[in-house]
Amino acid sequence: MDIVLIGFGTVGQGMAEVLSRKGATLQSSFREKLRLVGVFDSSSYEVSKKGLDPRELLTRKEKLHRVGPKLEGKSVLDALKDIDYDVMIEATPTNIEDGQPGLGHITAALKAGKDVVTSNKGPLALKYGELMRLAEKNDARLRFEASVGGATPIINVARELLMGEKIQSIRAIVNGTCNFILNRMMDEGLPFDQALREAQEMGYAEKDPSYDIDGIDSAAKAAILANAIFGRDCSYNDVRRSGIRGITLEAISMAAEEKKVIRLVAEISPSRLEVSPRLVPVGHPLAIGGTLNIFQMMTDLAGEVTVAGRGAGRLETASALLSDLVALMKEDCVVRRRTV
Amino acid sequence: MDIVLIGFGTVGQGMAEVLSRKGATLQSSFREKLRLVGVFDSSSYEVSKKGLDPRELLTRKEKLHRVGPKLEGKSVLDALKDIDYDVMIEATPTNIEDGQPGLGHITAALKAGKDVVTSNKGPLALKYGELMRLAEKNDARLRFEASVGGATPIINVARELLMGEKIQSIRAIVNGTCNFILNRMMDEGLPFDQALREAQEMGYAEKDPSYDIDGIDSAAKAAILANAIFGRDCSYNDVRRSGIRGITLEAISMAAEEKKVIRLVAEISPSRLEVSPRLVPVGHPLAIGGTLNIFQMMTDLAGEVTVAGRGAGRLETASALLSDLVALMKEDCVVRRRTV
Repeated sequence: MDIVLIGFGTVGQGMAEVLSRKGATLQSSFREKLRLVGVFDSSSYEVSKKGLDPRELLTRKEKLHRVGPKLEGKSVLDALKDIDYDVMIEATPTNIEDGQPGLGHITAALKAGKDVVTSNKGPLALKYGELMRLAEKNDARLRFEASVGGATPIINVARELLMGEKIQSIRAIVNGTCNFILNRMMDEGLPFDQALREAQEMGYAEKDPSYDIDGIDSAAKAAILANAIFGRDCSYNDVRRSGIRGITLEAISMAAEEKKVIRLVAEISPSRLEVSPRLVPVGHPLAIGGTLNIFQMMTDLAGEVTVAGRGAGRLETASALLSDLVALMKEDCVVRRRTV
Repeated sequence: MDIVLIGFGTVGQGMAEVLSRKGATLQSSFREKLRLVGVFDSSSYEVSKKGLDPRELLTRKEKLHRVGPKLEGKSVLDALKDIDYDVMIEATPTNIEDGQPGLGHITAALKAGKDVVTSNKGPLALKYGELMRLAEKNDARLRFEASVGGATPIINVARELLMGEKIQSIRAIVNGTCNFILNRMMDEGLPFDQALREAQEMGYAEKDPSYDIDGIDSAAKAAILANAIFGRDCSYNDVRRSGIRGITLEAISMAAEEKKVIRLVAEISPSRLEVSPRLVPVGHPLAIGGTLNIFQMMTDLAGEVTVAGRGAGRLETASALLSDLVALMKEDCVVRRRTV
């Protein structure tokens, strides 16, 4: 299995570390060569038919701030044409406006019949149906566990392990930054602005925090869940959305008097697609603390099934990419074994 | 896919209902006939090459208290020899002493190269290694999601979705009856004996409650997790075990003063295999209420991953059997599709 890794920021570098730590084990488990034959950051790239050493790439990136020779005006898509690969790992940052450049990368790979594993929310929250039809037409596989919930295996639990169930609804906390802010307001009595500043200082929130606190990130994830689990073809613009900017200390203490907490909850069902602050009873799974993500599914046979885990982080997101890569290798391995 | 269902008590009847509700959808999803060609209860059986109607079997069982003509001294194993089937669903009750009769049924199926899906803890908590070797030797698949955690997909999350992770430890609440009793003691100040009586009246606990409250059930599940997830070959006798009989109201109120609750926790790691009452901080995932089961895994890349769900129940256990059946059908379907 020859891999091209696109994006060498936090997630891409995490993936390189994971490949270096787990590559040998995976090769022997599945009896299949696993080679990283190409890697791109925003301005440079490196290619090798024999396979690149992920450790060397990490060292080079740290020293030179690039991963290889400069692209020099050449586009990633042009460079890709000269590379022979099986799977693209697309780990460029999410762009919720038009999905680029990830959308272009994924489209090119699928058109060429290559499998894709991605952590990039943009393409899936904007053009899900189109991408899925393209994958099917070209007999390629598109997997995206890492795009929602970080290391939490929500997509694969819902779509694979609960395949026999009818999932009726999902309620979820999908943005750790908002959860952190709401918790700090409640636990320490901090006003919103101060809790936000603290989140920024700790690296949980960006300088422009709008993406998190206005619920855009949560809405993108809700759209992906609606598409992947409820067979919708919606964009993040279809999500009814309100964020946590308006939450006051007064509201939080009124909730506390009723033994409730305020949480930014995503609710997804065939008839509902919404992200909004909700009152959640203390002790309820959705009253989860810290920056964890949690997903509560209601199903017809199993009743409620809950999964929770770390919603972000370098190795955590890479671990979700890894789980999809493992699923591809496993499928290939089953086919080889059963057809000998 | 021709199925034989052994055991037609709560779980077996649940499975019949699930097959009747989901059979047509599964057949069309996977383009494979799904036929129930044999069914056994403890004293009778029914066979049909063309396939039995699960609804009719449920009606007959309700009216006649048996599922078909009496076995009349014929053993299940003898009767099985005359049936042509692909998958055995083994749903007889757990016998933690010697694993019988489930162990005999599963052994016979694997020896004949048939796949097995089971909810029966006994065979897996006593003879795991032996059964796995038998399955491998005969190129048969043995799946047992339903044996631990009811509808909670713990085994398949750990072994399949987190296959690329190194799971370092699992802490779990696997017995809903104990959790119910401990909660009633805490919430209502009921003494142990009274909370136990209430659990018995509500059908959560058996007349002889030892299996639950002395931690035998939890130990069997801990052994299965150790075998399935940590590659051990241990029996439930290897689990250090203490139950909840000795928990007093005083202990519970002392815990409450420190904002803690008492839970019967199973802890499984390469170096630890134990079931015992533990203090858990209020708000911690393991402080879960009601009769839910919860599993908290610590992994090397993803950090902590938690899954929770209903640990028992007719349709819930059948839903876990269904998830394993779906996994078999899906694997077969991938092989057919990719080899055309």
